[in-house]
Amino acid sequence: MNERVLIKDLSALPEGTVTVSGWVDTVRDQKKVQFVVLRDESGAVQIVNPATREIAEDDASSAERVATTEAISGLSQGSFITVTGTLKHDERVKLGGLEVKLATMDVVSHAIPETPIAADSSLDKRMDWRFIDLRQPKQNLVFRIQTTFEHALRQYWIDNDFIEIHTPKLMASASESRAELFEVEYFDTKAYLAQSPQFFKQMAQPAGFGKVFEVGPAFRADPSFTSRHATEFTSIDSEISWIDSHEDVMQLHEDLIVAGFTAVVEKHGDAIRELFGLEVTVPSTPFPRIPLAEAKRIVAERGYEVPRADDDMDPEGERQIAAYVKEEFGHEFVFLTDYASSIRPFYHMRNDEDGSLTKSYDLIFNGVEISTGAQREHRVDVLIEQAKEKGLEPEELEFYLDFFRYGVPPHGGFGMGLARVLMLMLHETSIREVTYLFRGPTRLAP
Amino acid sequence: MNERVLIKDLSALPEGTVTVSGWVDTVRDQKKVQFVVLRDESGAVQIVNPATREIAEDDASSAERVATTEAISGLSQGSFITVTGTLKHDERVKLGGLEVKLATMDVVSHAIPETPIAADSSLDKRMDWRFIDLRQPKQNLVFRIQTTFEHALRQYWIDNDFIEIHTPKLMASASESRAELFEVEYFDTKAYLAQSPQFFKQMAQPAGFGKVFEVGPAFRADPSFTSRHATEFTSIDSEISWIDSHEDVMQLHEDLIVAGFTAVVEKHGDAIRELFGLEVTVPSTPFPRIPLAEAKRIVAERGYEVPRADDDMDPEGERQIAAYVKEEFGHEFVFLTDYASSIRPFYHMRNDEDGSLTKSYDLIFNGVEISTGAQREHRVDVLIEQAKEKGLEPEELEFYLDFFRYGVPPHGGFGMGLARVLMLMLHETSIREVTYLFRGPTRLAP
Repeated sequence: MNERVLIKDLSALPEGTVTVSGWVDTVRDQKKVQFVVLRDESGAVQIVNPATREIAEDDASSAERVATTEAISGLSQGSFITVTGTLKHDERVKLGGLEVKLATMDVVSHAIPETPIAADSSLDKRMDWRFIDLRQPKQNLVFRIQTTFEHALRQYWIDNDFIEIHTPKLMASASESRAELFEVEYFDTKAYLAQSPQFFKQMAQPAGFGKVFEVGPAFRADPSFTSRHATEFTSIDSEISWIDSHEDVMQLHEDLIVAGFTAVVEKHGDAIRELFGLEVTVPSTPFPRIPLAEAKRIVAERGYEVPRADDDMDPEGERQIAAYVKEEFGHEFVFLTDYASSIRPFYHMRNDEDGSLTKSYDLIFNGVEISTGAQREHRVDVLIEQAKEKGLEPEELEFYLDFFRYGVPPHGGFGMGLARVLMLMLHETSIREVTYLFRGPTRLAP
Repeated sequence: MNERVLIKDLSALPEGTVTVSGWVDTVRDQKKVQFVVLRDESGAVQIVNPATREIAEDDASSAERVATTEAISGLSQGSFITVTGTLKHDERVKLGGLEVKLATMDVVSHAIPETPIAADSSLDKRMDWRFIDLRQPKQNLVFRIQTTFEHALRQYWIDNDFIEIHTPKLMASASESRAELFEVEYFDTKAYLAQSPQFFKQMAQPAGFGKVFEVGPAFRADPSFTSRHATEFTSIDSEISWIDSHEDVMQLHEDLIVAGFTAVVEKHGDAIRELFGLEVTVPSTPFPRIPLAEAKRIVAERGYEVPRADDDMDPEGERQIAAYVKEEFGHEFVFLTDYASSIRPFYHMRNDEDGSLTKSYDLIFNGVEISTGAQREHRVDVLIEQAKEKGLEPEELEFYLDFFRYGVPPHGGFGMGLARVLMLMLHETSIREVTYLFRGPTRLAP
């Protein structure tokens, strides 16, 4: 491995010889002196080189210096270079109060000079050239935040004795609704891509795993083009045994959110402030909980009637109730609970007293749904009835129903979209901004 | 959440009232006393109940006791129950030196009495009923080991400033070979399932991410039925910038293996000894490195001529070289290096001096290949030549080739099959034993 120093570590080094590697951000090619802003995964630094424009006959080394000067003049943005030079601390240098005086430069990869995107390119164009788009410090930070957030969740799960599972994404049948299912040619039969790990994370319960988690892809053949939908997304899932109700799931859920936000604020709070102009705050627990019927009343009182025939909320309703919660409780999160059974999947457990309601919730963050959770129905006879009521064929669900026939503990869990959390945390307008490579109905590349 | 105690925590508790929840392992229904072995995700405990077979007219509570006795007599294996009773420490009890004298029992889920599999059922039959099969303490341990191993790898990556990525599994074209590609109906076009995150983890390099990792599914339409192959498997991937050769990748790789094994031995060493009769050891670094040509000479000297026309090793050759390394260096791991370019993908960088060799390696563990790593070719003109040489159409690879046209650092990485590591660590004979839900050419369910 070459002995390069990360740019962020330069400020702590004494003056002297250093080697830095990265890509060319800008070149300022003045007559007497050349400046290169070099960027790596950790930051940016100014490289300075006194230009030597002509070979002096009486100076043997001048040919080499001219060659270097010309190489710098010819540097295109995005070229990857390694520079060895002398580190100087100088408060007058705006970029970090230091610069590196170039001694030698190695251009390891020349970039095509015409960069196909600029800062003001459309989101779609930027996605075409995502690998260049991701060089922006803001984008780099997004994925460092993602890394920290996920790791904090995993640390919580590990500390609490959860088992990590990897459920198969190839299934013989649908896991949620037949409508949004991708079909795969599977030797001489068909397979389907898992819309969620729902059935298989539940399977861990009769398997006696107790508490499980998974972070993995989920697939929805959803033709919509909203800023919140993708055909492939990273789903954060957890499922636990021996709960009394969805309240136990919500407690786990808010603890996880707090763990994730705490880690993000600690590690990236300053960088987020600088690059996004935002103050990310760690939410307090318990998060407010509002039954859906009450939420609709509150929203109506604010002058918004949810224009839906079914009992569901709509996106504007979610924004309105979030605004109310923000005003009333100063909170960015709210659990909407007790959704009507008519609009919930057959496997959500219903309320003991009122079968028209489920023991379920949605988690709303800054006005947008990021997650659905519930206690699951574990009584197989009830489950079959609920499946039939939804127009499903119990025969197609046999493998799933078997999970409940040989003993199963009461259990529940949630699934949460990773990109939605990041989008709302960073006040971005689309999950495309916070997805490494977005997949949509018309987007399969790069 | 009910106030249950995990069975593993009972031994540290004083005698007195406790509540435990789990599933019925066995019932011993004697005339005067009944014993239930109750198992949960953490262990097993004996429940004892003095049988009351007849209602005594002069004892008001006897009816209830008779009901409980009959409920225990009727308990089927696998039923999930909650028991509240009195914890007694008693050294004479073989199972953990304690028992719980039953006061009340709640049967939350009755299991169908006929368990469809037994300990001696075939592997295929056990996979049909995987959710019951996984109740075995050995199986439970496998997934705890998996959890610990993965977390240790992630902790290493986090500690070393890697970025976690989630690359898309839906692609517009092949990522490796056209031969083993699953095709997906994607709205009015076709998509393909990623055979590895290869192209997209490489994309993180021109994106300036520096060091990345991913743990996620990969898909191979491979019709083979060996004990080491699956159509869907969990791939552990890492890719790093600014390497000098594949040697840098091997150093990362062995550090990760050591981190994973150290955590597994610390946390599960005793349990592995008990349930698998095995001593898992942390390998020393550096792992032995043997160029493939030399490995073939060594194997030939041992009397085994690799029966292959190409320059590759075969499974028996891998076992032989592993046996040699074990004898010679006492090591379970060996890096075979410098594979012929004729048998490596076009994106492997070739040796500077000898273009017939690549800067690549396979990692062999206990005689089986678990991983392939390499420095990647980052010079786009060379890359195109190598693609053509392999009979690929550069036109189909345009999106990938673009990653190299706008600047890219030298880089390399590896992909490693999680199930293979676990299989070989635990001396299992098939990855099916260590995969939550195996997927093969004829296996899509459960």
